[in-house]
Amino acid sequence: MSNLFPFADCFSNIFPKNMNNFHLKDYIQERKQIVDRHLDALLPKPEGPSGLVVEAMRYSLSAGGKRVRPILMMAACDAVGGNHGNIMPAACAMECVHTYSLIHDDLPAMDDDDLRRGKPTCHKVYGEAIAILAGDGLLTYAFELMTHPELLSAVENSVVNNAISIFAKAAGVAGMVGGQTADILFEGKEIDADTLAYIHRHKTGALIKASVEMGAMLGGGSEEQVEGLARFGTALGLAFQVVDDLLDVIGDEKKLGKPVGSDERNQKATYPALFGLEETKKRAQDLKNQALDALEPFGPEADPLRAIAIYVVERDR
Amino acid sequence: MSNLFPFADCFSNIFPKNMNNFHLKDYIQERKQIVDRHLDALLPKPEGPSGLVVEAMRYSLSAGGKRVRPILMMAACDAVGGNHGNIMPAACAMECVHTYSLIHDDLPAMDDDDLRRGKPTCHKVYGEAIAILAGDGLLTYAFELMTHPELLSAVENSVVNNAISIFAKAAGVAGMVGGQTADILFEGKEIDADTLAYIHRHKTGALIKASVEMGAMLGGGSEEQVEGLARFGTALGLAFQVVDDLLDVIGDEKKLGKPVGSDERNQKATYPALFGLEETKKRAQDLKNQALDALEPFGPEADPLRAIAIYVVERDR
Repeated sequence: MSNLFPFADCFSNIFPKNMNNFHLKDYIQERKQIVDRHLDALLPKPEGPSGLVVEAMRYSLSAGGKRVRPILMMAACDAVGGNHGNIMPAACAMECVHTYSLIHDDLPAMDDDDLRRGKPTCHKVYGEAIAILAGDGLLTYAFELMTHPELLSAVENSVVNNAISIFAKAAGVAGMVGGQTADILFEGKEIDADTLAYIHRHKTGALIKASVEMGAMLGGGSEEQVEGLARFGTALGLAFQVVDDLLDVIGDEKKLGKPVGSDERNQKATYPALFGLEETKKRAQDLKNQALDALEPFGPEADPLRAIAIYVVERDR
Repeated sequence: MSNLFPFADCFSNIFPKNMNNFHLKDYIQERKQIVDRHLDALLPKPEGPSGLVVEAMRYSLSAGGKRVRPILMMAACDAVGGNHGNIMPAACAMECVHTYSLIHDDLPAMDDDDLRRGKPTCHKVYGEAIAILAGDGLLTYAFELMTHPELLSAVENSVVNNAISIFAKAAGVAGMVGGQTADILFEGKEIDADTLAYIHRHKTGALIKASVEMGAMLGGGSEEQVEGLARFGTALGLAFQVVDDLLDVIGDEKKLGKPVGSDERNQKATYPALFGLEETKKRAQDLKNQALDALEPFGPEADPLRAIAIYVVERDR
């Protein structure tokens, strides 16, 4: 998800006329600051004999993340008429799980990455043992945040239980962990369209969908609203991946800030490789339309979600 | 916790007269079978592109664990008049967290162990990447189990949320992850009594205490009962560690099934090394009495917990 949101202002011309007054860049920036502030306040302080693991958790949490998932959760909460201020522990929990997954993915036994977003990865700074524990600590802390008194006082207990269930399923073997497993097992092997879809849907798609679904649920959305936003989340997650693959083939290296064609050189299975360029472009548009259709019953409260869906597909970097 | 329970029958003579009819060995065996059956039924099946990670999770879960923590949780539930049959998803969740911690502890970057309970460790069988993911999967699945429909239909939603909160705190940086971090950071270094107590209280003590506390809570115990059983759990967890250290010095190698004196040879900080033999023996008795005192207000429903506390301190292996 490396390119989501950084230059969103360039795309004001692609939004429908009735959304003219909505500035995605300002919106994202403001929301990101809210998330950052809450993460700092809600995470434990590095102190005592085990302070180093908390320091490592905070290091990775503050290493330039764009807070895509918590922002989506907050936007979905607002879209159903909820108040995102009430659900910040859950939004931060989502960022904790995303960050833990990056720490473990970067480990030598997994992708063996020394840098992430230009900064040394957690295990490069703190060593492998502490990095493993920092990931474990973040994953566990996410569920502590899901039962934070602030959240429990604002949202019905049964709704929080449902949200925890959806969260755990999306993060675990039926979701992200399952996707990462398949990604590792099929590395360098020829894969078919079904397996590619499985990996995308699970590795990145599951948490994006859960972010939107949980936001709608915790915001007090009706069953139909939650279901509609879950469909939006599924389409959005897949759209992002499809466009990412497209840009790797047809993107402008200068705008992307990375060389194009790297997927082909790395023999990575991609949508363009499996379906061809035109079919992939069509697929991206279809997914955008699916996402926007799912928002049809919602009023202007859902404009940020609309803007995000359009941006994700129309971006050129 | 390698020696807990295996020969509990030898100790029928150490139980008070009024507990003569209680057979700890039979009790443990029967409860262990219940846990094993539920674990098998509640864990996902290994299928689809990511089936291997589920296989790895199941491999480690069925690698000879004695189910100490779930059995304690069930016993605490029964002690407050609850029905342990209602809380089996939570009991299994506890075993998932314990097992994940063993998988990650055994990794090359941590303790680098090839064998656990005589069987090859998870990373030896499935490789490091899958072992990391299997641990992540088990930790995440524990919280999915905490919101299992069976548990939610038997226990009030707010009580389940409290239990999740206690669980996450005990497993995370304020508990087990914190203890493991300190253990790694102080390896081979001289440590004082406070740090030793910190490591024990967090690395193994936190989950044992939480098992008992959660059982009491989910079983419908009053605030006083939950608080009393939490005190019992704290004393029990520490008692086990103190006696383990003692047996390493004065135990019978044949009975222990491992060489004595290994802690001293490994320069491991222990209670006897810090406090001397007599003081350590006294401490073990004190902890046993603290545990039994905490059970004072309970009737015969708490006999299994009494038997376990006596056994843990009086065992000679």
